[in-house]
Amino acid sequence: MPSPVPLAGKRVAVLIEDLFEDSELIVPRDVLVRAGAQVVVVGPLAGRAYAGKHGQHVTADRAAAGTQASEFDAVVIPGGFAPDKMRLRHPMVDLVRDAMAAGKPVAAICHGPQVLINANVLRGRTLTCWPSIAVDVKNAGGRYVDKPVVEDGNLITSRKTADLTQFTDALVRQLAATH
Amino acid sequence: MPSPVPLAGKRVAVLIEDLFEDSELIVPRDVLVRAGAQVVVVGPLAGRAYAGKHGQHVTADRAAAGTQASEFDAVVIPGGFAPDKMRLRHPMVDLVRDAMAAGKPVAAICHGPQVLINANVLRGRTLTCWPSIAVDVKNAGGRYVDKPVVEDGNLITSRKTADLTQFTDALVRQLAATH
Repeated sequence: MPSPVPLAGKRVAVLIEDLFEDSELIVPRDVLVRAGAQVVVVGPLAGRAYAGKHGQHVTADRAAAGTQASEFDAVVIPGGFAPDKMRLRHPMVDLVRDAMAAGKPVAAICHGPQVLINANVLRGRTLTCWPSIAVDVKNAGGRYVDKPVVEDGNLITSRKTADLTQFTDALVRQLAATH
Repeated sequence: MPSPVPLAGKRVAVLIEDLFEDSELIVPRDVLVRAGAQVVVVGPLAGRAYAGKHGQHVTADRAAAGTQASEFDAVVIPGGFAPDKMRLRHPMVDLVRDAMAAGKPVAAICHGPQVLINANVLRGRTLTCWPSIAVDVKNAGGRYVDKPVVEDGNLITSRKTADLTQFTDALVRQLAATH
């Protein structure tokens, strides 16, 4: 019988910036919390509320500066226009690069892989994304495929909000398997 | 004495999609019209009003499908989040690629160079852009520099709204010199 709290003790960083795609932050956050994980929303400033594209506001628990990948078991990068801003935040890019280097689950959806491009971690990796950035992913050395969810080792990617169920399923499964 | 209508007889395509950076479309359009050019706003659908990031609405005069670079003396690509949408519109990307191949002035500001990436015209070209896409420009083979305006032959690029005066000055000067 599976544990009622499969992610007990797991800590997950969910990145935030203004103009995040509302459901791509809120759905993974809520799925993770219900599965027993501790979710830490990481933004440029702790305590600031960031605005989603569709009007939801979510407050950052922690500032990216000062966070360490070693504090977390996984990192989630929601989409929308937020990744266009996140990729200019060096502490966020560093957090993603370090989590990738440590082999921790990194889950990016929609425009989220823009941050992976800036972290320079896509060479030879297979992934999906929102189609507008597919050429950028390919130019960064990634192998772009058009599927609802792609798992290439620890790297979990999806295309859009319609893929959220497959995206969170893969994330919860990988996180539950980490030690 | 310079001509009072230095751009008389010149036709310029200004690309549009939703979430354009309002001033990056409106200022070049107005500068070109005052200098005597005919401006044709080219969008996905003729007669549809597109919404800028800051609430301005501008109606497309022509649909991109069916336009030919040969109808125009120059192409302007405004920034904002519109280029993220434009780059998925094949007729817009084709228009830009053909204008570049013909050596006509192509002026892109802010995120506008995202369309140039999809047109695959940046290899070996020197340009500037909004900093979030600098890595994408470099991965596409462009030489990124951080300057208010960069002219590499017919390719005119600027970083942001604060550069609009230099951007439109360069465009008007190049257009006036075309035959």
